[in-house]
Amino acid sequence: MMSSVKRLLIGRPLKSDQLGDQKLNKTKALAILSSDALSSVAYGPEQILLVLITISAAAFWYSIPIAIGVLVLLTALILSYRQIIYAYPHGGGAYVVSKENLGKYPGLIAGGSLLVDYILTVAVSVSAGTDAITSAFPSLHPYNVIIAVVFVLLITTLNLRGVTESASFLAYPVYLFVLALFIMIGLGLFNVLTGRVPAELHTPIGTPVAGISLFLLLKAFSSGSSALTGVEAISNAIPNFKAPAPNNAAKTLAAMGILLAVLFSGIVLLAYYYGIIPSEEVTVVSQIAEQVFGRNFMYFFVQGTTALILVLAANTGYSAFPLLAVNLAKDKFIPRMFTVRGDRLGYSNGIVSLGVLSIILIIAFEGRTEHLIPLYAVGVFIPFTLSQTGMMIKWIRQKPEGWIPKLIINTTGAIISFVVTMMFFMTKFTQVWPVLIFLPLIILLFYRIHKHYEAVADQLRITTCEPPLAIEGNIIILPVAGITHVVENSLRYAKSLSAEQIIAVHVPFEREDDAIFEEKWKKFHPEVRLVTLYSPYRSIIHPLTKFIDTVQRKASESNYQVTVIVPQFIPKKGWHNILHNQSSLLIRAHLLYRRNVIITTVPYHLKK
Amino acid sequence: MMSSVKRLLIGRPLKSDQLGDQKLNKTKALAILSSDALSSVAYGPEQILLVLITISAAAFWYSIPIAIGVLVLLTALILSYRQIIYAYPHGGGAYVVSKENLGKYPGLIAGGSLLVDYILTVAVSVSAGTDAITSAFPSLHPYNVIIAVVFVLLITTLNLRGVTESASFLAYPVYLFVLALFIMIGLGLFNVLTGRVPAELHTPIGTPVAGISLFLLLKAFSSGSSALTGVEAISNAIPNFKAPAPNNAAKTLAAMGILLAVLFSGIVLLAYYYGIIPSEEVTVVSQIAEQVFGRNFMYFFVQGTTALILVLAANTGYSAFPLLAVNLAKDKFIPRMFTVRGDRLGYSNGIVSLGVLSIILIIAFEGRTEHLIPLYAVGVFIPFTLSQTGMMIKWIRQKPEGWIPKLIINTTGAIISFVVTMMFFMTKFTQVWPVLIFLPLIILLFYRIHKHYEAVADQLRITTCEPPLAIEGNIIILPVAGITHVVENSLRYAKSLSAEQIIAVHVPFEREDDAIFEEKWKKFHPEVRLVTLYSPYRSIIHPLTKFIDTVQRKASESNYQVTVIVPQFIPKKGWHNILHNQSSLLIRAHLLYRRNVIITTVPYHLKK
Repeated sequence: MMSSVKRLLIGRPLKSDQLGDQKLNKTKALAILSSDALSSVAYGPEQILLVLITISAAAFWYSIPIAIGVLVLLTALILSYRQIIYAYPHGGGAYVVSKENLGKYPGLIAGGSLLVDYILTVAVSVSAGTDAITSAFPSLHPYNVIIAVVFVLLITTLNLRGVTESASFLAYPVYLFVLALFIMIGLGLFNVLTGRVPAELHTPIGTPVAGISLFLLLKAFSSGSSALTGVEAISNAIPNFKAPAPNNAAKTLAAMGILLAVLFSGIVLLAYYYGIIPSEEVTVVSQIAEQVFGRNFMYFFVQGTTALILVLAANTGYSAFPLLAVNLAKDKFIPRMFTVRGDRLGYSNGIVSLGVLSIILIIAFEGRTEHLIPLYAVGVFIPFTLSQTGMMIKWIRQKPEGWIPKLIINTTGAIISFVVTMMFFMTKFTQVWPVLIFLPLIILLFYRIHKHYEAVADQLRITTCEPPLAIEGNIIILPVAGITHVVENSLRYAKSLSAEQIIAVHVPFEREDDAIFEEKWKKFHPEVRLVTLYSPYRSIIHPLTKFIDTVQRKASESNYQVTVIVPQFIPKKGWHNILHNQSSLLIRAHLLYRRNVIITTVPYHLKK
Repeated sequence: MMSSVKRLLIGRPLKSDQLGDQKLNKTKALAILSSDALSSVAYGPEQILLVLITISAAAFWYSIPIAIGVLVLLTALILSYRQIIYAYPHGGGAYVVSKENLGKYPGLIAGGSLLVDYILTVAVSVSAGTDAITSAFPSLHPYNVIIAVVFVLLITTLNLRGVTESASFLAYPVYLFVLALFIMIGLGLFNVLTGRVPAELHTPIGTPVAGISLFLLLKAFSSGSSALTGVEAISNAIPNFKAPAPNNAAKTLAAMGILLAVLFSGIVLLAYYYGIIPSEEVTVVSQIAEQVFGRNFMYFFVQGTTALILVLAANTGYSAFPLLAVNLAKDKFIPRMFTVRGDRLGYSNGIVSLGVLSIILIIAFEGRTEHLIPLYAVGVFIPFTLSQTGMMIKWIRQKPEGWIPKLIINTTGAIISFVVTMMFFMTKFTQVWPVLIFLPLIILLFYRIHKHYEAVADQLRITTCEPPLAIEGNIIILPVAGITHVVENSLRYAKSLSAEQIIAVHVPFEREDDAIFEEKWKKFHPEVRLVTLYSPYRSIIHPLTKFIDTVQRKASESNYQVTVIVPQFIPKKGWHNILHNQSSLLIRAHLLYRRNVIITTVPYHLKK
């Protein structure tokens, strides 16, 4: 039953050698890896205006130079990540770059913050998309959390079906969104150029504004930079591209950069010319769309595709998180299970973990995840800074042909990213301080996991010590609860093992039962030695363990091995299990974890 | 850690032969077994007035004859249960009586409704007590559910500590409550007799009232009878009494009947003479206390002890439920685990189940369990009727000396109980209909469980068939993941068992790994046969199961037994488990439940 539901949801399992079919072409890759970055133009420009409005609407012309600053940063990041793609074609992005050039701990800082960041991406973007939808249909508002959770479940299922299937499905909304914004920006700018937009709506560029400060401008700049989150994704997901993967990835990255630049600057320009003032109720993009189109089909087209792309931005997290997890797991910093491919060749454990963790976040914050945005932006700019610093070191160390321009690009990127990171800490400390707590914790956890895996590998390596002594003989202990077929069955098996000795053990709770049982046993199997251990405290485990300890002590003197044979009922129906004392499970768990004995389970399948 | 917390909460384990020390004397038994019955005087009289007020306050004089009716019913019940105690000194009350005299199904109806009823008792009385407390301290009101749950947890813990300990602790509030009400009734009646209470406050007895009907009077009577819930408890709990248990139980029952009669009639009389009118905000008892004492210490004493006894009424459920469960479990109608005594010799599984189920009810109804009261009263009167009908049959069949008066007592009790039950269905059908659904469901469940236990016993009985064929030889299958100490260790054990054949099985996920591993194995243990099963779908279980099936088919032809040896890591710390693939657990569970193979687990304890 379970397995047919699974088939229906995620499809038939794929063979390992079908992996090539699951690779992405550029069009699909652009759609699923850039939805995060592109969706951020829906709130990035607004963030700039929200800072400037604290002075006055007259300060809005500063959004133009600030946008230019963001574009410069974007260019530096794109060029820089282009270089990372060619230098590290196996993916891993900031984590691998930082680890290889800066060392283990910077790598873990980058990896840890990205890992958390992708979880935040999913939670934040799905919540934002849900908000956009429930703003349009206010009657759905009370169900915000449930709707968001359903979206996460849907996206998780799509991703479990496999990369290409989710790409085919998700490509449409992304391209429709781009189309919608292109039409809006084109028509809007046409209106501006043909003088149909009144000039009074905007203060001319260069108008002096009282109260403006460098601090404020930097704050506006860093807020606007939150539109650049998601640029990292492609460099993490190179292995998902069709061959030649690095070339295709680099081209996709360039295309994404251009789209992002056009959309971002278009929206900033229109907001400026139309004199849009950010408000609580209506988003900037919505205001622009209303001014440009009026409340007609196109307005709703822009709104609808924006809502969709916000939800789908989550999908970027699903592409990048599992691959980053694979890299961390291969280096033994997170559990090994993240390296296992699922039925459909995706890294299912990573996909499912991401889904579960973001649902927890959505529920914990009751769907109001807006104030996680600064946290999330910081979590992106820390690895940006580290990866580009790493690339600087790489160029300086290796000095390949033409390294000077490369160094300049990465240095510019590193400096701007660092400044943005610092601005976040300085201007939004109340919102970003948790980073300073959870990052060290995550790194401690990575460290502990790594230490454990190293210790295990050390103990298992066959070369580390001489082979153990051979076993000279076996002693079998058989706990018996009564004279039944189950015991008969186990005894038959015990006898077939040609052990040196078989000891049946009975643990009565009442003093009187002792003799009665011994009497019965004598008639049943007089040739097998029976030991009865009266248990005044009604515990089976305690006297049994004590007895086994004694036997084991003696056995080890002559290199004998002790095996406990535990008979186990297997009822025909699952619910029947609660009708039986689970003593055999308890005995097994206790002995296995506490003592060095071998446990043999002899099943007894009930027929009705 | 866990076990020391357990020690702290419930105390050191007791030996089975210390059971005698855990028995109750009459004073303690009265306290813990009558708290339910006595607490119902806090709401019983009010229920009568609430029905009469639907006509007019002039009808209040009818409360006197109705109370006399309730006293008659009480007398019949007490006398009747006294006879049950002597006839069935091993407890079980209505369940045993109905089962033995009326047959299996009437017994199960009585047992099932009482079982549910004790859960309702706990939920309803704890909620009522919590309400009484939060009415006094309104700032606590939002925490109603949490407070109620904490009370249930406290009472559960006390009961896990053992019967006598909870009795010692709980006796004080019960006797203080009785004392408080005695003082109130004494002083109140003194005031009435000495003429200090104005005669205008009450209409004289016999005043004709327009609109009164027999139906209404019967409704008022059945409502008042809800004060008699809890009378059954002592007959269920006879085994908890000190020897001679039946005598002591009978005396305790008589004492409880007298106390209940005095308190009930006292409150009805005072309510009549003082002309108390039931209100939403203030209970009848609280109004009487205010009239008698004024708002002084005594008023708060009455209020406080009332709140306490309402909470403690739950404890009656804790005394009776586990013993009823033992009776049902011995007859194989509910899981056998209910017959096991815990560390402190109480039937812990019953106690814990009762606590958990009532917490679920409290949370599900958000602490507003008042409308469960009629349901709960019906659940009591159904077994009352059945048990007394059972006693009637018993007397008629056995005709012991002096059986006629006994028959008359039980017949009276049966008829009144039956009438009350019918009144509940007729006058409060909207509240009691769930009984008609859950009772059949419970009985169906009892039936299914019983059938399963019978089937199992049938299959296990050693006399049912000839002994199975002896095992001629063993074939051992050893799944190996790599060349490690863990495998070496398991192989050493396999060799010591002198099996006919040992087969190592490796399941690679990549076609290339196949040859590589075979090469390595040849150097490692060339004498052991290795089978590699390439798994294109990356499942270990599937190819392994198929292989085992093949081996088993061949083995069974010559009476060979197949054993699978599964090596298992035992990490030093619990959390390390999530860092390892739990393949061995999965393999074990799958093979054990689906196939008839023996599974041997060889532990490999990691040292760091």
